[in-house]
Amino acid sequence: MDVIRAAQEMQKQSETWRTEGKTVGFVPTMGFLHEGHLSLIRLAKTFADRVVVSLFVNPTQFGPAEDFNAYPRDEEGDLKKISEEKADAAFVPPASEMYPEGFQTVVQLKEITRGLCGASRPGHFDAVATVVLKLFHLVQPHVAVFGEKDYQQLAVIRRMVKDLNLPIKIVGGATVRSPEGLALSSRNAYLKDEEARRALKLSQAIRTVQGLFHGGETKSVRLKAEAGKILSDPMIVVEYVEIVDAETLKTSENVDRPARLLIAVKIGKTRLIDNGPVQT
Amino acid sequence: MDVIRAAQEMQKQSETWRTEGKTVGFVPTMGFLHEGHLSLIRLAKTFADRVVVSLFVNPTQFGPAEDFNAYPRDEEGDLKKISEEKADAAFVPPASEMYPEGFQTVVQLKEITRGLCGASRPGHFDAVATVVLKLFHLVQPHVAVFGEKDYQQLAVIRRMVKDLNLPIKIVGGATVRSPEGLALSSRNAYLKDEEARRALKLSQAIRTVQGLFHGGETKSVRLKAEAGKILSDPMIVVEYVEIVDAETLKTSENVDRPARLLIAVKIGKTRLIDNGPVQT
Repeated sequence: MDVIRAAQEMQKQSETWRTEGKTVGFVPTMGFLHEGHLSLIRLAKTFADRVVVSLFVNPTQFGPAEDFNAYPRDEEGDLKKISEEKADAAFVPPASEMYPEGFQTVVQLKEITRGLCGASRPGHFDAVATVVLKLFHLVQPHVAVFGEKDYQQLAVIRRMVKDLNLPIKIVGGATVRSPEGLALSSRNAYLKDEEARRALKLSQAIRTVQGLFHGGETKSVRLKAEAGKILSDPMIVVEYVEIVDAETLKTSENVDRPARLLIAVKIGKTRLIDNGPVQT
Repeated sequence: MDVIRAAQEMQKQSETWRTEGKTVGFVPTMGFLHEGHLSLIRLAKTFADRVVVSLFVNPTQFGPAEDFNAYPRDEEGDLKKISEEKADAAFVPPASEMYPEGFQTVVQLKEITRGLCGASRPGHFDAVATVVLKLFHLVQPHVAVFGEKDYQQLAVIRRMVKDLNLPIKIVGGATVRSPEGLALSSRNAYLKDEEARRALKLSQAIRTVQGLFHGGETKSVRLKAEAGKILSDPMIVVEYVEIVDAETLKTSENVDRPARLLIAVKIGKTRLIDNGPVQT
């Protein structure tokens, strides 16, 4: 497996593959890879002849009070895992390569970035959209795979790709969970044992809402109330519980088209998100 | 010559050319083509095997008080000229194809868009950057040619291409002028005879500043003052006269590296811009 650090080299490699008629798949990550990421690499391989995995902890998408410096990193371990999954290249650009002096361009999405995680993380999704667009131009993929775990991020990327006419197919990969139901996340590394146990309530809330919906309840306010009951816990600070349109992320009173239950909480110092489909 | 109106068809055509190993050149325009545009098409042909010319009067880059509706249009005449220049395709997307329902993405450049024309046209260059990025994704050129006449636009596009890692070479084409020196512009169609005569003062001012600079004057304030004297005319309202760094568009007291004299005025109801190099 190639480890590519220079932006231009990445572009050249992809251009070579394309000239040879190969399709290119891409899995952008912030590293500290877990089984969730690895499932995305496997998914990308089913769509493309060549697969690139990027490792880049993007500084611009962290707020000043957020965990950029503390964010877990393990480049050596990550490269070993990417190699074991038989991806064709790891793209590991230094920040200086991504944001040289004079850099000043930002991609903004006006509506889809405003609510949910965007409400408490101003600028976060603009920074995500910008870095992903840069990576798209560098890796030139035919297909890019994102985890459904960051559901708003996936929706933002889909919207950006559509709005900017990028010739890239965006694929969402299902969230991978622990046997008990905890959605895998690099940030789970922060959780103490008791916190990890309480964190199981997120997936319990999702399953409960899905059960009620399949039992015939379609009022968003009632479904959210049931989720709220399960999340009611002195160790859990709920940031939001929302049921939104699966594509536009707009709220509606009734679930009458594909929707998604989205949850964000803080347990101790750790911010966790999870989500699941609410649809027939 | 092909006339392509559907976004997807444009992308497919370019993909086909690229697969055949052909290089693609691109000249984005708002139509109403004059000799300046045609010189850009010829320039593009020297860089690429296939050349696409787009005709799109982009509504988002006009302010509410600006001349979007009045902007001169002549699709039939334009297509004839493009064909005579032996370009390979004209891309003429309808606005509904470029901005479908739900569209919400904007590319912002923080510094280079703020001053000069950006000061009086808020949002203009963000809209230009956004539509050009969309067109780049649709036409997938190796080389794109822009007129130096809209110098700030050219600088904005160069910065965006660098910041977003687009694998596209940007080429600036020299401004084409009437025998008397008036920079060709679609908006010259608005000028009455006497206004057109007064408009010659813009190029006179540029030549004077260039002469003074080559005579040894490097103080921006003095060079601008001389330009101001020439533009002093009851029919001319000067919006700005600036000498800026040729790449960053930042002002400086002294011209000690490649710089550009930029002028914007109103003559009657018509806004005119012009510029020229101030460098050894």
